[in-house]
Amino acid sequence: MDYYSTKITALIEELSRLPGIGPKSAGRLAFHLLNLPETDVNRLTGAILDAKHNVRYCRECCTLTDGELCPICASPARDHSQIMVVENTRDLAAYEKTGKFNGVYHVLHGAISPALGIGPADIKLKELMVRLQGDVNEVIVATNSSLEGETTAMYLSKLIKPTGIKVTRIASGVPVGGDLEYIDEVTLLRALEGRVLL
Amino acid sequence: MDYYSTKITALIEELSRLPGIGPKSAGRLAFHLLNLPETDVNRLTGAILDAKHNVRYCRECCTLTDGELCPICASPARDHSQIMVVENTRDLAAYEKTGKFNGVYHVLHGAISPALGIGPADIKLKELMVRLQGDVNEVIVATNSSLEGETTAMYLSKLIKPTGIKVTRIASGVPVGGDLEYIDEVTLLRALEGRVLL
Repeated sequence: MDYYSTKITALIEELSRLPGIGPKSAGRLAFHLLNLPETDVNRLTGAILDAKHNVRYCRECCTLTDGELCPICASPARDHSQIMVVENTRDLAAYEKTGKFNGVYHVLHGAISPALGIGPADIKLKELMVRLQGDVNEVIVATNSSLEGETTAMYLSKLIKPTGIKVTRIASGVPVGGDLEYIDEVTLLRALEGRVLL
Repeated sequence: MDYYSTKITALIEELSRLPGIGPKSAGRLAFHLLNLPETDVNRLTGAILDAKHNVRYCRECCTLTDGELCPICASPARDHSQIMVVENTRDLAAYEKTGKFNGVYHVLHGAISPALGIGPADIKLKELMVRLQGDVNEVIVATNSSLEGETTAMYLSKLIKPTGIKVTRIASGVPVGGDLEYIDEVTLLRALEGRVLL
């Protein structure tokens, strides 16, 4: 039984397909949209469609971007011989926020997961190997520290080492400001294994 | 500083204007939308625009609906002499879900709030008074049990009583299944005042 008219029900159904939005939030969002001025609604749908139709993979690093080349790959100020490999565009943004990495990126759009049936051919590995034929000194593997991320890091290391290019992995350990008491054992062991001389 | 391209940033900004969606969720939603098949994205924006352009106030009860008249006002099976007054369309839906009310509704789209500068002329009161010139036996005031809802109920009662039409208010008290221990004092007092003979 529908308590709302057809078009309102359709809108609530569409909104509740979005991740993290349950039926209650979808209802709240739907009525919020219905009460917004039309220009605001058009701006929202316009932004969605504009991004959807115009955002594509960067020709170089495969990150999601507006044009052919992303601003990082297009920048002569970045060190193009140092490539940081990340799983997705949001991980790239996380490293960009630090403001301390001056190399370029490669976005895999996923990680190898035998459990989910995601193999090396399903992520942007081929594109990375093509880039390595250029002038590259180091590949920094910054995939997540999950099972999939580690599997991908191992695979990359085996693939790249024969080319003679240096392959490194970002350190795992105790997060800055983290309280040892609340940190899982695997991380604590990693931190111990990765200890450095003071 | 932008870590994403212009169109992605614009999309995230638009999404983070929505209620209950912070910058992090907006980012997650944006990349979800960018990864969706185009048909799904078009269906979402289509549902938003279709609802926005076609949903209007019901000519009778002012609820949000697709056509001229909402299905409830259009139904000959409902008792049109009994009008339940609610603050918004979602409150109407809440009562419809009970399946036990056979009258019709009137949606005020708000409640009187001197603090927020919302007066009687800012909600759909005039439209209600017009309806009362017809064949109406009872007005059930089902505004919220908040300060604004109570103010509106008092105002309605004073306005309608002189017409001779019966005005009632839904009961306040302890919610079914509610544990007395966790219920606020005002509600407990209301429940006491509204006690009925067993």
